[in-house]
Amino acid sequence: MNSIFEHRSIRKYKSQQIDKETLEYALKAAVRASNTGNMQLYSIVVTSDERVKEELSPSHFNQPMIKNAPIVVTFCADVNRFSKWCELRDAEPGYDNFQWFTCSVIDAMLAAQNFCVAAETKGLGVCYIGTTTYNAPEIAKTLNLPKGVIPITTITVGYPDESPDLTDRLPLEAVVHYDTYKDYTPELITELWSEKENSEFTSKLLEENELPNLAQIFTKKRYTKDAAVAFSKKFFDFVVEQGFFNHK
Amino acid sequence: MNSIFEHRSIRKYKSQQIDKETLEYALKAAVRASNTGNMQLYSIVVTSDERVKEELSPSHFNQPMIKNAPIVVTFCADVNRFSKWCELRDAEPGYDNFQWFTCSVIDAMLAAQNFCVAAETKGLGVCYIGTTTYNAPEIAKTLNLPKGVIPITTITVGYPDESPDLTDRLPLEAVVHYDTYKDYTPELITELWSEKENSEFTSKLLEENELPNLAQIFTKKRYTKDAAVAFSKKFFDFVVEQGFFNHK
Repeated sequence: MNSIFEHRSIRKYKSQQIDKETLEYALKAAVRASNTGNMQLYSIVVTSDERVKEELSPSHFNQPMIKNAPIVVTFCADVNRFSKWCELRDAEPGYDNFQWFTCSVIDAMLAAQNFCVAAETKGLGVCYIGTTTYNAPEIAKTLNLPKGVIPITTITVGYPDESPDLTDRLPLEAVVHYDTYKDYTPELITELWSEKENSEFTSKLLEENELPNLAQIFTKKRYTKDAAVAFSKKFFDFVVEQGFFNHK
Repeated sequence: MNSIFEHRSIRKYKSQQIDKETLEYALKAAVRASNTGNMQLYSIVVTSDERVKEELSPSHFNQPMIKNAPIVVTFCADVNRFSKWCELRDAEPGYDNFQWFTCSVIDAMLAAQNFCVAAETKGLGVCYIGTTTYNAPEIAKTLNLPKGVIPITTITVGYPDESPDLTDRLPLEAVVHYDTYKDYTPELITELWSEKENSEFTSKLLEENELPNLAQIFTKKRYTKDAAVAFSKKFFDFVVEQGFFNHK
């Protein structure tokens, strides 16, 4: 349980391999997660083959964890398996639409988080790789994902070879609302971000980037609008192509 | 940790209230989850007010857990808070698009699952309510969700007043693929579903519903194509309305 509160993203791994039993423990935890109608609308692709990892690497912008981690686990939204079963039973599947895109993403993510919590209790370190949706078509090609399957997130897994500090979070009251949502005033925004904005780490970041504030580090350096628009088009087109938008 | 393997959806709760400390423990676990760029693109609405729960109830098709659980927790994708901060800092936010819809859904779901695992270690029972995306506009209205915020899943929470059996799952090999995805042959589908299809529970279900097989229970009774198409349109329109589709 403490693993939740001790969680760090681990990006450097020992060469030690993960034994089958430990991996299965985490996979079994994954499938115990709640899921839509007990339909299990996800697939988990566990990649350890060096050639496959090599091919995945550019899709994740060559982040070194992909090649360095003993295993790379891609969690996919998957209505293919369930729909195939329906078709074989003379039952018309109706899961090729946006409602079920969302359900299958939810299912995949609850399983992914169970996987991580369980892996960490066994001494493994994990890192979520946020680039999966950026290059979903290329990842799907490498992993042979058929229609009805979309990669949503990727987790690199291995025994930690670093021990980073716990990352900061906004104060709890920034994200929790009681009874109904209370929208944010400018004063409240400033109060909630003050610790982040006034940290030594932020000061160094601003100096290095020659920018006046932390928000501009996000909008001008890390996650620009231009990139978001381009990758949104690419990802949405792929979601349509994979057959999740037949509700019009 | 065992809570992951012991998880049951709990739909009946004791009248016992949840103390503040226990609730905060689960909320603090939620925010420790990995999230995109440490931007925490989610909000958690914790509802205990009877009038608000009463208003939420029809949006969840009057499932009794909404009114009977001491608290109802709605996990929302939220780019509103982060975008407001950017605007206040003369930084142009670019999160009103499909890429960031997906990122914020991922963030919200990883937090939700941490919340559940932690709540269960404290003896609480939870149930994911899958109807949140069906009536997202109505839920948003009840909870005062502004533009940039979408309810994704709802969790009812309380001390268990039932102890249901563990639900079945497909065999692990049904959802796990090694290295790359191996698509399903008809023979494999039949093998993977055989335990479900041949259970006593399924026999009873087929008799009650006068249907020839389990797949048709899903497609004709539980999750029909017609409903999926209608709710897909409704949910997608709402996603657009809330400002997550400005990438065209």
